[in-house]
Amino acid sequence: MDLKPVIGIDLGGTNIVGILINERGNILAKKRRKTLAQEGKDKVISQIIGCVNDLLKEGENLGISPEKLLGIGVGSPGPLNRKQGIIYHAPNLPGWENVPLVKILKDELGMSIFLENDANAAALGEWWLGAGKSVNNLILLTLGTGIGGGIIIEGQVYHGSKDMAAELGHIVIKEGGMICGCGTRGCLEAYASATGVVRRARAAMKQGYKTILKDLVRNNPEGLTCELVFQAARERDSLALWLVEETGRYLGIGIGSLANVLNPEMVILSGGMIKAGDLLFNPVRRFVKLFSLKAIIERVKIVPGTLGDEAGAIGAAAAVLKERRML
Amino acid sequence: MDLKPVIGIDLGGTNIVGILINERGNILAKKRRKTLAQEGKDKVISQIIGCVNDLLKEGENLGISPEKLLGIGVGSPGPLNRKQGIIYHAPNLPGWENVPLVKILKDELGMSIFLENDANAAALGEWWLGAGKSVNNLILLTLGTGIGGGIIIEGQVYHGSKDMAAELGHIVIKEGGMICGCGTRGCLEAYASATGVVRRARAAMKQGYKTILKDLVRNNPEGLTCELVFQAARERDSLALWLVEETGRYLGIGIGSLANVLNPEMVILSGGMIKAGDLLFNPVRRFVKLFSLKAIIERVKIVPGTLGDEAGAIGAAAAVLKERRML
Repeated sequence: MDLKPVIGIDLGGTNIVGILINERGNILAKKRRKTLAQEGKDKVISQIIGCVNDLLKEGENLGISPEKLLGIGVGSPGPLNRKQGIIYHAPNLPGWENVPLVKILKDELGMSIFLENDANAAALGEWWLGAGKSVNNLILLTLGTGIGGGIIIEGQVYHGSKDMAAELGHIVIKEGGMICGCGTRGCLEAYASATGVVRRARAAMKQGYKTILKDLVRNNPEGLTCELVFQAARERDSLALWLVEETGRYLGIGIGSLANVLNPEMVILSGGMIKAGDLLFNPVRRFVKLFSLKAIIERVKIVPGTLGDEAGAIGAAAAVLKERRML
Repeated sequence: MDLKPVIGIDLGGTNIVGILINERGNILAKKRRKTLAQEGKDKVISQIIGCVNDLLKEGENLGISPEKLLGIGVGSPGPLNRKQGIIYHAPNLPGWENVPLVKILKDELGMSIFLENDANAAALGEWWLGAGKSVNNLILLTLGTGIGGGIIIEGQVYHGSKDMAAELGHIVIKEGGMICGCGTRGCLEAYASATGVVRRARAAMKQGYKTILKDLVRNNPEGLTCELVFQAARERDSLALWLVEETGRYLGIGIGSLANVLNPEMVILSGGMIKAGDLLFNPVRRFVKLFSLKAIIERVKIVPGTLGDEAGAIGAAAAVLKERRML
C-alpha cells in the first residue's frame, strides 16, 4: 500500500519544528530551527516555508513525491481562527497580529494548509503517537513559561463554540491570589507555570529563607530559573523542596477541578517543567486526590508526555489527517 | 403525522416530576408528587411507577395509546451508570445504594427505560425547549442545596469517559477555603450553593454585623435560609447585599474558569436560587468578566433557565429521543 505523507509544523516562540510523517504515523524526516522572532513576521514566515521545503527535499531523497502530500498542518500560538486560517495574535511572536497564515502559505507553497492551536496540536500528537495512544479522552497541560491546554474527547480535539476552549492555565484556583498575565488573579498559570515557580521562589528568597538558590544564582536573582529551583530540590534544599511540593499542590488543585469537569481517562503533562520527573509528578499525583471526587480521580492516569517538543508538529500533521477523515 | 409520545421523570429528593410529551416537544400531561424519601427505596420506586401510570392514563384520555410510547427517561441523582441502568448512590434518597432502577422499572412497566444524571437531564431539557434552544453548546449550573452541572456539546450531553463529567460544583475556587460536602476545601459549591450562602450568612451574623436577618429568623439562626438572605437584600439590608454580591463573585469565578475551559455559547443558571433574579444575575455577569478571557466571555450569554423544575423531566424525555436518534 502506498502510504500518503503529510507535514506538521510547530510554530513556537523559540523553535520551529517540522516533521514529515505518513498516515500510519511513521516519521520520515525532522527539521528544526531557532525562530528568528525578533526579525519580524515575514522572516518567520520565510522560515516556515524553508522548513517545509527542506522536508519536501528530504522526502524526495526517500522517493516521496511532493504531489502525494496530503497537506500541511501548522500548530500555532493563538488566539486564532482555524476555519479562516487567521492568527489573531501570538504573544511570543512580535508583529503577529491578524496574520492570514493559511492564505500566505497556500499562495507560496500551492498546497492545502490547516491551522490548529499549538496546545491542541500537542494534545492530538500525544493522543496519536504518544502517551495517550491507548485512550480516547484526555487533557494535556503544557507546563512552560505559561500553561497551555488541550482537550481530546472521543479522539477529537475539543474546540468549543469559537475555537477558544481549553485555556486550562486560566482556571482560578485561588480567589484574590497572584496576578496572572491574562489580567485575572489567582489563575493556575500564575502559580504553577515556570514563571510562577520563579516568582514564588524569588518572593521566598526576599523573605530571607536559607537556600542554596542564592549560590546557584550567584546573588543575581534575575538569573533564577525554574530549572535551578528543581536542581536545588534534587540537592535536597529545603526551600526548593517546599516550592516544588507547593507547585505539585497547585497543579493538583487545577487538575482535580478539571477532572471533575471533564472526567478524562488521562491527564498528560508536557513542556519544559516535566524534566523534573517524579520530583514533580509525585506531589501532583498525591495532591490531586484531595481535590477531585474519588470515583473520578481514581481512574485517571497522570503521565508525562512522551513526544517532547515534537508533539505539536506531530499533532499538526494529525490535524490534517483528521480534516481528511483519515484518522 | 402521528407524533410519538415519550415520558420523562425527574426523580428528586423533594419532588418526583413526570411529563408526557411528544417528539416535537408538545407537553401533553404533567404529574408531580412529594417524594416520600424517608419511607425508603421501594416506596419511592412505587411512586415513580404511579407517576408513569397516571401519565399513561391521562394520555389515553387524549387518545394516545400506551403502545406508541417511545420509552421512559428517568433523570436521577447520582453517581450512576447509564449503560447498566444502575444508581450507585443518591445522597438525598435514603437507602438508594446500587439500585438497578432500569431493570426494576422495565420488569414492572414492560417499556424501554433510559437513565440520565439529573443535572445533565436539566441541561438537555433547557437545550431542547428552554433557555438554550437557540444554541448548541452550553453549560448549566443548578443552584440549590448543592451545585450540579450539565454540559451540552454540539447538542449532545457530555458524559466524560465514565459518565461522571460535569461535576461543576466541585471545581476549587479558593485554595484552602471552606470545606465542601465532597471532602475537598474551597469548592464552588461550598461558597455559592444555597447551603454555602446560609453558612456564610450565619458566620457573618456570629461576627456581630448589624442585619435585619436577625429579625427575619426571630433569633433562631437555625431557621435561616437562602431565600431569607435574598429577601433581606431586596429590603436593602447592607449585610445581605454584601452576601449576595459575594455570591455573585464566587459564581463569577467558577463560571469564568468553566468558560475558559469549555468556551460555551451560553451559561444557564437554574434551581431555587435563581428566583433572586437580577439581584444575583447582575453581580454574576459583572464579576465573570474579571475571571475569564475577554475574547471568550464577551460572547457568552449568562441566563436563567426557563423551564423551572420541569427541566429535568423534559430533558429525561429528550434523552429517550436522543437514544433513538430522533433528536
